[in-house]
Amino acid sequence: MKTVIIGTSGHIDLALGVRDRAHGVGFVGIAPGSADEDAKAFYIDQLEATLIPWYDDWRTMLDREKPDLAVVAPFFHLQSAVARACLERGIHVFVEKPMATSLEDLARLRAAHAAGRAKLCPMLAYRYHPEFQAARRAVEEGLVGEPLLLTAQKSYKLGVRHPMYTRRATYGGTIPWVAIHAIDWLWWFTGGGLVEVTGAHTTKGNRDHAELESSGACFYRLANGGSASVNFDFFRPAAAPGHGDDRLRVAGDLGVVEVMNGEAVLATHDAAPRKLEREEPRAMFLEFVRHIETGSPMRVSAGEAFAVSEVALKSREAADRGSSVRLR
Amino acid sequence: MKTVIIGTSGHIDLALGVRDRAHGVGFVGIAPGSADEDAKAFYIDQLEATLIPWYDDWRTMLDREKPDLAVVAPFFHLQSAVARACLERGIHVFVEKPMATSLEDLARLRAAHAAGRAKLCPMLAYRYHPEFQAARRAVEEGLVGEPLLLTAQKSYKLGVRHPMYTRRATYGGTIPWVAIHAIDWLWWFTGGGLVEVTGAHTTKGNRDHAELESSGACFYRLANGGSASVNFDFFRPAAAPGHGDDRLRVAGDLGVVEVMNGEAVLATHDAAPRKLEREEPRAMFLEFVRHIETGSPMRVSAGEAFAVSEVALKSREAADRGSSVRLR
Repeated sequence: MKTVIIGTSGHIDLALGVRDRAHGVGFVGIAPGSADEDAKAFYIDQLEATLIPWYDDWRTMLDREKPDLAVVAPFFHLQSAVARACLERGIHVFVEKPMATSLEDLARLRAAHAAGRAKLCPMLAYRYHPEFQAARRAVEEGLVGEPLLLTAQKSYKLGVRHPMYTRRATYGGTIPWVAIHAIDWLWWFTGGGLVEVTGAHTTKGNRDHAELESSGACFYRLANGGSASVNFDFFRPAAAPGHGDDRLRVAGDLGVVEVMNGEAVLATHDAAPRKLEREEPRAMFLEFVRHIETGSPMRVSAGEAFAVSEVALKSREAADRGSSVRLR
Repeated sequence: MKTVIIGTSGHIDLALGVRDRAHGVGFVGIAPGSADEDAKAFYIDQLEATLIPWYDDWRTMLDREKPDLAVVAPFFHLQSAVARACLERGIHVFVEKPMATSLEDLARLRAAHAAGRAKLCPMLAYRYHPEFQAARRAVEEGLVGEPLLLTAQKSYKLGVRHPMYTRRATYGGTIPWVAIHAIDWLWWFTGGGLVEVTGAHTTKGNRDHAELESSGACFYRLANGGSASVNFDFFRPAAAPGHGDDRLRVAGDLGVVEVMNGEAVLATHDAAPRKLEREEPRAMFLEFVRHIETGSPMRVSAGEAFAVSEVALKSREAADRGSSVRLR
């Protein structure tokens, strides 16, 4: 499976990091998503040793290499256009979320995907994190009862970010970039049960990152009458262990399952809280390759991925407007 | 200071539990808040040994004993009327929150208090919990920077509750009864910076408790552009340690302070996360007695208590209506 990389602004390590185990996958080219991406510097610094040929222009690379699969991670506002161009050429796409930074771009990408020429998978990789999968399985097995109250957290260290992050026009926003993972958990755990969103975000405290939202929260009404919320921030202190502080709590009348510190803990009425067994980690990229080859199901379908991206963009809209937005 | 107890449906232990240390305070009578309160059974079972004289009617008790101070904890919908009657007689009031279960009752109580004949203190006792005080101090000292994102949790075990809890008319709702503590934390930590609320709650999963809301969430816009949220539930599993799972997280650009498991932990950019030192516990009731005697300040003023109760009732309104309610 001839594979290329377009852009180095996202989690291309999700593919490159499992290169050794990606049997049958050959990386035949890498190119920036746009001329201003500084991808060349990144390439020289980090990727030259991978011996993947460099191209200055991704369209030329596609013409020349005729790949089967593209890993798409340009500046975020270009994700949808690059992914669309690939799909239209019949090239499968492993694309950074949110896949599009506007609802219009998302609709165009959806249409290109609906043409059915190639498959698409977004980098909503948490579905393959063992602790989240363990929690999801507990909910699926009915161990917490009906999920009626979900709370999720994404907290990252800010550091000093590339200028791309400092403009809404190129970055898209912290809700579609960061909170989207928590939105994906809510979508996954409730079976798509989000019906309305209210939200807020602020650029205050963003340490000279211009338009980048430092923090915010989204509140969701659920189809079953329950509630869910997401809080997200770039306030994780530099001295704290690890980059992120991901959390998810799902409560129902039979129990509470919670993901924190990389563990899933289940509490039920008849047993003391206990850590859930975690599966062996699976690489989303390898699952996608297998999906392309054999049709094996992904934990997030393309349809779901579009729905989650749409919720993220509508959540940003709610936060921008300071009012509620219907989700269905 | 002659003290009476009216009603046994709330946290009268906040007063009785520190009886030995309440120098100069004599409990001269106890009476139900209403004839249907079952207070007599509770009295016989738990309070007879205290040797506090029993009265069938609290008005008779007030006439007879002419107390200086009343601990008021009847069925929740009666809190405001009893407290008001005490204030009007010039009796100081230590009253269970939310102090009133409707905005109209709250306004009446506020007016009675404004007449200035006696002092009033609500049982918002978390302000005297050492871990919350430690976190508050850290924020006050600027250690997290400007608080821009606050998340709070109240989770309790449900058990089997008195029928009073099963009707909105007597109970008032889970937001004014349970979530109010988290609302108080937000009010306290933001200096009253809550400007709008959206919320949801549900009775689903309430295990035959009729109208009692099992769970829900409230989302607040802050005056400084930040966000805050509260999630609350009666889903804490029976087998989990302790009755409640109280949490508060306050994030700003300089750090994050968090209360969980009875500890306050501060994380800043220049030091690894560390537990904050906690003061010696102080009893709110004793502080109130001292306040009456010497005018020493309370950590929650009566004015703030009215504001917090009002936010709680408006949050319930937002959850009932499924829309936003302005708070100022």
